[in-house]
Amino acid sequence: MKIDGRAMRTIWLARDGWSVEVIDQTKLPHAVEIARWTTVADAAQGIKTMVVRGAPLIGGAAAYGLCLALRADASDAAMQSAIEYLARQRPTAVNLRWALERMREALAPLAPAERAQTAYREAALLCEGEVEACRMMGVYGARLIRDIAARKGGKPVNILTHCNAGWLACIDWGTATAPIYHAHDAGVPLHVWVDETRPRNQGASLTAWELGAHGVPRTLIADNAGGHLMQRGEVDMVLVGTDRVTANGDVANKIGTYLKALAARDCGIPFYVALPQSTIDWEMPDGSAIEIEERAAEEVLHISGRAPDGRIVSVEIAGPGTPAANPAFDVTPARLVTGLITEKGICAASAAGLRTLYGRDAGGA
Amino acid sequence: MKIDGRAMRTIWLARDGWSVEVIDQTKLPHAVEIARWTTVADAAQGIKTMVVRGAPLIGGAAAYGLCLALRADASDAAMQSAIEYLARQRPTAVNLRWALERMREALAPLAPAERAQTAYREAALLCEGEVEACRMMGVYGARLIRDIAARKGGKPVNILTHCNAGWLACIDWGTATAPIYHAHDAGVPLHVWVDETRPRNQGASLTAWELGAHGVPRTLIADNAGGHLMQRGEVDMVLVGTDRVTANGDVANKIGTYLKALAARDCGIPFYVALPQSTIDWEMPDGSAIEIEERAAEEVLHISGRAPDGRIVSVEIAGPGTPAANPAFDVTPARLVTGLITEKGICAASAAGLRTLYGRDAGGA
Repeated sequence: MKIDGRAMRTIWLARDGWSVEVIDQTKLPHAVEIARWTTVADAAQGIKTMVVRGAPLIGGAAAYGLCLALRADASDAAMQSAIEYLARQRPTAVNLRWALERMREALAPLAPAERAQTAYREAALLCEGEVEACRMMGVYGARLIRDIAARKGGKPVNILTHCNAGWLACIDWGTATAPIYHAHDAGVPLHVWVDETRPRNQGASLTAWELGAHGVPRTLIADNAGGHLMQRGEVDMVLVGTDRVTANGDVANKIGTYLKALAARDCGIPFYVALPQSTIDWEMPDGSAIEIEERAAEEVLHISGRAPDGRIVSVEIAGPGTPAANPAFDVTPARLVTGLITEKGICAASAAGLRTLYGRDAGGA
Repeated sequence: MKIDGRAMRTIWLARDGWSVEVIDQTKLPHAVEIARWTTVADAAQGIKTMVVRGAPLIGGAAAYGLCLALRADASDAAMQSAIEYLARQRPTAVNLRWALERMREALAPLAPAERAQTAYREAALLCEGEVEACRMMGVYGARLIRDIAARKGGKPVNILTHCNAGWLACIDWGTATAPIYHAHDAGVPLHVWVDETRPRNQGASLTAWELGAHGVPRTLIADNAGGHLMQRGEVDMVLVGTDRVTANGDVANKIGTYLKALAARDCGIPFYVALPQSTIDWEMPDGSAIEIEERAAEEVLHISGRAPDGRIVSVEIAGPGTPAANPAFDVTPARLVTGLITEKGICAASAAGLRTLYGRDAGGA
């Protein structure tokens, strides 16, 4: 998408044709800085310290990290070592391992001398595949926005989103944001309510920033505000991403998503979830068994931001010794989800709905 | 209630018998400092700058502020001037005007020489009345907690609360916290989930602090977390205060309350609201007509806390120029409210329910 009029992705090859450049997301929203990686260690460090984050982007970054490793040493032992090294930078990121396995499958049969060049081509294909999946979610999802726009007769469509399922988490377009960017670029008048998304504030620091940089009208709100805005007719649609969709259509996503789904249902507002096929967990029958990551209390007790003197400072918001709990995700039951927007189309959040798009993948149904 | 074992109120007469001392709430939770007022200007400044806040406490502070004014000059003109001066420090606080009118009614018939002494007695009575109302909410509400405790066979009752309806907002006990303090002091095992309550973080800075200082087990959570905790059986009861209850039982309270009420309903968890009679707006038929205060975007965009060097710093969490909206309250429909806990007992959140407790006040029903 665009940053102040200039088309950008989150990761790309530098002009030298081999080193890798990324937007340093640890600096957002306070500065747009480009980091350049010339070694696999640079890539590993960037993944670990969240210079790059978001499942599709981590996969792409690992693929390019492997290219940098093979450029230095493409032997079997070196390749194996680099794959293991990259994989352990974010232990729970499924896309990281998926991307590295895909690279290994393409590269293992080749002679070492052929590997580096092929790796760059595979990494580029992998990234393009992610971009295309996001683009198609945008194509399908934008139709929903256009339908609402048609009913509103020129008034902006108000969309509420939670967390960052944006292009910053992907290579381009994003998942939940893809329909928004498509509709906006096509001239559909719209406006986005951005939940700040405590405790890590990805809405405030990433989503509000990326929408603004692309020129999409948006307003930041406290996570508490969405229900009230829905009650008062200020929201036409809720659109979020997801970390995992179970076989019955239950949706695990950033903590707080469930509360917005409840309000949408209570107020008669459609609630959509955008996801690529890789997010569907066919093995898990429903969301009740999903183990919810409990993250550090520190994330609740401290907030980072720009102090008046320009420095980035972390401040403590509660008294010393205050205990805090920090569940990172919640599960929105399928009954509250109006539909799933995927790269193959839109379907109901149910086993039957998913079968209409992914018949064979869904286990031969 | 207690601060580290010592019984405290939010406002009291100093040992000299005439100056007024209050807990400086702008310093919480980072320091417990006592401010001393010797003039009406001190009291006015304290009300304006939120050294004291919360409807019942503001009323008590204004009453004592008038005492300080009359001590210096008790003429009709001076009393009128002091009442107007105090009333304009927080233009929308109903309790402020209510307390000053009550003082005026008691003092106007007296000769100036008798006024100051009577004012001190009236201010003390006014504060005691507020304390007694809160205490009775505690007596009635604690029964609900005891009933749940009996079913849980010794395991702690988990109560979720939002914002600060605590003793810091009152003179003592609080509204939503009164049942909690009563049950805790009586040895009922309980634990409180404290919503941080963005954007002003009254949960993190006040409720978590006051519960901890009194020794009540509590855990701070992001506002997003409550729904998930309810889904997983970690909440037995939701208990909040309110800014206004309409004649049909709709509840206006801090933004985000509605979302918790929805989750409680979805998960089959009781949702109670504690309030004194003065919070009931008999003239307003339901909550749809309540005008919701839109506060400064600054409150969403900046968060204040303690920096590593110990200074209290306000940091900006979004990029420069990010627009933000800040509705301060929302309305929880009566259908989502299990019951209202008042100083007269517990009733259904409905016109009929309110009539059972306030028959005559409710308009002769």
